[in-house]
Amino acid sequence: MPEGVALARDLVGPAMEAAIVRLTPEVRKVAAYHLGFADAMGNPTRSRSGKALRPALALLSARAAGTPPERGVTAAVAVEMVHNWSLLHDDIMDGDTERRHRPTAWTVFGVGAAILAGDALLALAQELLLESEAPQGAWAARCLSAAVTRLITGQGNDLAFEKRDDVTLAECLDMAGDKTAALMACACSIGAVHLGAPPALAMGLAGFGAHVGLAFQLTDDLLGIWGAPEVTGKPVRADLRSRKKSLPIVAALSSGLPEGAELRALLTSPDPLTEQDLVRAADLVVAAGGRQWAENEADAQLAAANASLAEIDIPTDVRAELTAIAEFITARQW
Amino acid sequence: MPEGVALARDLVGPAMEAAIVRLTPEVRKVAAYHLGFADAMGNPTRSRSGKALRPALALLSARAAGTPPERGVTAAVAVEMVHNWSLLHDDIMDGDTERRHRPTAWTVFGVGAAILAGDALLALAQELLLESEAPQGAWAARCLSAAVTRLITGQGNDLAFEKRDDVTLAECLDMAGDKTAALMACACSIGAVHLGAPPALAMGLAGFGAHVGLAFQLTDDLLGIWGAPEVTGKPVRADLRSRKKSLPIVAALSSGLPEGAELRALLTSPDPLTEQDLVRAADLVVAAGGRQWAENEADAQLAAANASLAEIDIPTDVRAELTAIAEFITARQW
Repeated sequence: MPEGVALARDLVGPAMEAAIVRLTPEVRKVAAYHLGFADAMGNPTRSRSGKALRPALALLSARAAGTPPERGVTAAVAVEMVHNWSLLHDDIMDGDTERRHRPTAWTVFGVGAAILAGDALLALAQELLLESEAPQGAWAARCLSAAVTRLITGQGNDLAFEKRDDVTLAECLDMAGDKTAALMACACSIGAVHLGAPPALAMGLAGFGAHVGLAFQLTDDLLGIWGAPEVTGKPVRADLRSRKKSLPIVAALSSGLPEGAELRALLTSPDPLTEQDLVRAADLVVAAGGRQWAENEADAQLAAANASLAEIDIPTDVRAELTAIAEFITARQW
Repeated sequence: MPEGVALARDLVGPAMEAAIVRLTPEVRKVAAYHLGFADAMGNPTRSRSGKALRPALALLSARAAGTPPERGVTAAVAVEMVHNWSLLHDDIMDGDTERRHRPTAWTVFGVGAAILAGDALLALAQELLLESEAPQGAWAARCLSAAVTRLITGQGNDLAFEKRDDVTLAECLDMAGDKTAALMACACSIGAVHLGAPPALAMGLAGFGAHVGLAFQLTDDLLGIWGAPEVTGKPVRADLRSRKKSLPIVAALSSGLPEGAELRALLTSPDPLTEQDLVRAADLVVAAGGRQWAENEADAQLAAANASLAEIDIPTDVRAELTAIAEFITARQW
C-alpha cells in the first residue's frame, strides 16, 4: 500500500470521527456504523472505513500546493464525507445488502435512517469547508459542489441505463466520468484549492484525478469479471452474473462482431445464467474485444493522468506518491 | 393571501423551473413532478408547487436590505430547493403517500429516484449560491448550510421520538426549532445575507423568522387536531388518529393532570382508535391545558417575532408585508 494511504488513515480517520460528533445522536449512530467507527449498537470498533484513497489524494493535493499534509485534512474529510454520502444512498438505490464485509446501513437501521445519515454527511462536508478560511473555503465548497452534481448525474444515468438495452460505450464512459472520475478529480485538487493554490496547479491536479478516476473505473470493471475473489471480495464474473452494463461488457456488445451479438443474446435472455453461461459470457467479452479495449483504455487514461502531472510544478516526492497511488488503484490483480 | 406570496410565485416559480433544467433528464423528471411543474409522464402542468412562503420571505429579506425583490431570487430559489429536498426525503422516511393532493414522488418513481431527486435539489441550492457573487454567495451558502444541518437534526429527533413514550415538551420545542423554525429563519435572512447586508439586520430578520417558524408550527399542530378539513386537506383530528407527538398533545401529556394520564392511556393503547376515542382525546387535550398552552405559546412567539422586527431599520412596506405573512401563516382556521 502506498505510504500516502497509511498517512491519510492516521490523519483523516480521527478528524472524521471528531466531525461526526456534531451530528445528533440518532444520526451519528448510523454514520459511525457506516464509516466503521462503531458497531450497530454504537460500541466503538476498529473495523476499517474503506480504503481512504480519496483522503490520501486530498492530502497529497495540499502537499502539491507546498503545505504540510495536516493543512489538507479539512478538505480530505469533506471529500470522504461526500464519498460516503453517495455510498449510503447508492446502497439503498441499488438494494445492496453488504459493503466492506458488513451489512449495509439501511439493512441495519432502516431506509429512512440511512437516507438521513447520507444527507447529514453531505451537509457536514459543505459546512466544514464553508466555515474555514475565506475565500478559499468557498472555492473548495464550489469544487466539491460541482463534483456532487456530477455524482448525481452519473447515478441518475446509471439507474436509467439499467432499463435500457441500447446504451452506447460513449454514454457509459460519460457515466463513469460523472460517477467515479469527478470526485477523484475533486479529491486531487481540493486540497490545493482550499489552500488558495494558483488555478493552473489546481487544474493540472484535477486533470490527473479525472484520468486516474477513469483508469480506476475501467480496472474495477475488469476486476468485476476476471478479478480474483480474494482481491475483490466478490465471486469471479460477478458483473456478468448481475448483467451489469460495465465498460468491457458494453464495449463487447457494441463491437459489431458476432461474439458481441451472442453475448447480448445471453445477457438479455430471461433464463437464469448457469456457471457455464458465465464462463462463455466472459470468453465472449474477450473474443469481441471488450477486455482488450478496456485494458488499452485504462493504459491510455493512466498515461494521460501522468501527462497532466508532468505539466505542473510540484515537489518530487508528491509527484512520486501521486503516481504510486494511481498505479496501486489500477493494478490488475487476477 | 399576502401580496408578497403572489409575487414570489411569479418571480421564483420560473426561476426554479429554469434551474432544474441543469439536472440530468432522469432526475429532472422527478424534481419537476414533485415541484408541480410536470405530471408523472413529464408533461407540463399548472399545478401549484406549494405555498411559496419561504420564497416570499426570502424576497422580502432582499427588500429589507434595500434592493428590489428581483435581487433576492437566487436566495429564494435556494431556500425553496432545500425545503423540497426535505419534503422529498421526509415523505420516504414517514411513508407518506400523498402531498399537495398528488401521490408523493417516491410512490410514482420509486424510493431510489426520489432520494436522488432530493439530493439533486440540495446540491443545486448550494451550487447556485456558491457560483453567485463572492463573498456574499459564500455567506448565503453558509447560512443555508446551517439551516440544513438543523433540519437534519430535527428530522433525526422526530424519527427517534416516535419510538419513545417519554418525550418532554422542551424536547419537542427544540425539535420544532430545528425542523421548522431554522429554515424560516434562513428564509427571512438569506436574501439580506446574499446581498451583503450588515450582520445586525440579518440577525434581526433571522430572529423574526425563527419566532414566526415556531408560531407556524404551533398553529399547524393546532390545525392538526381542530383544523377544518377544507383548510388542512386532512380529516379533523388527524394528528390524534396517527398518534403524532405534536406540541399541544405533548403539552397535555406532560401537564401532570389526570386528563393527561387518561390521554396517554388512550394514545398508547394497542387497540385502534374509534371516532369516539378521537373526540374524547381532543377533549382531553383541551382539559389538560394542551390547547390553551399552544395558543398562548403561538401568541408569544408571534409577539417575539414582531419585537425582533421592531429592532431593525427596514422600509415600512417591507415591515408591513413581513407582519402580514406572519399573521397569514399563523391564522387559526377552525
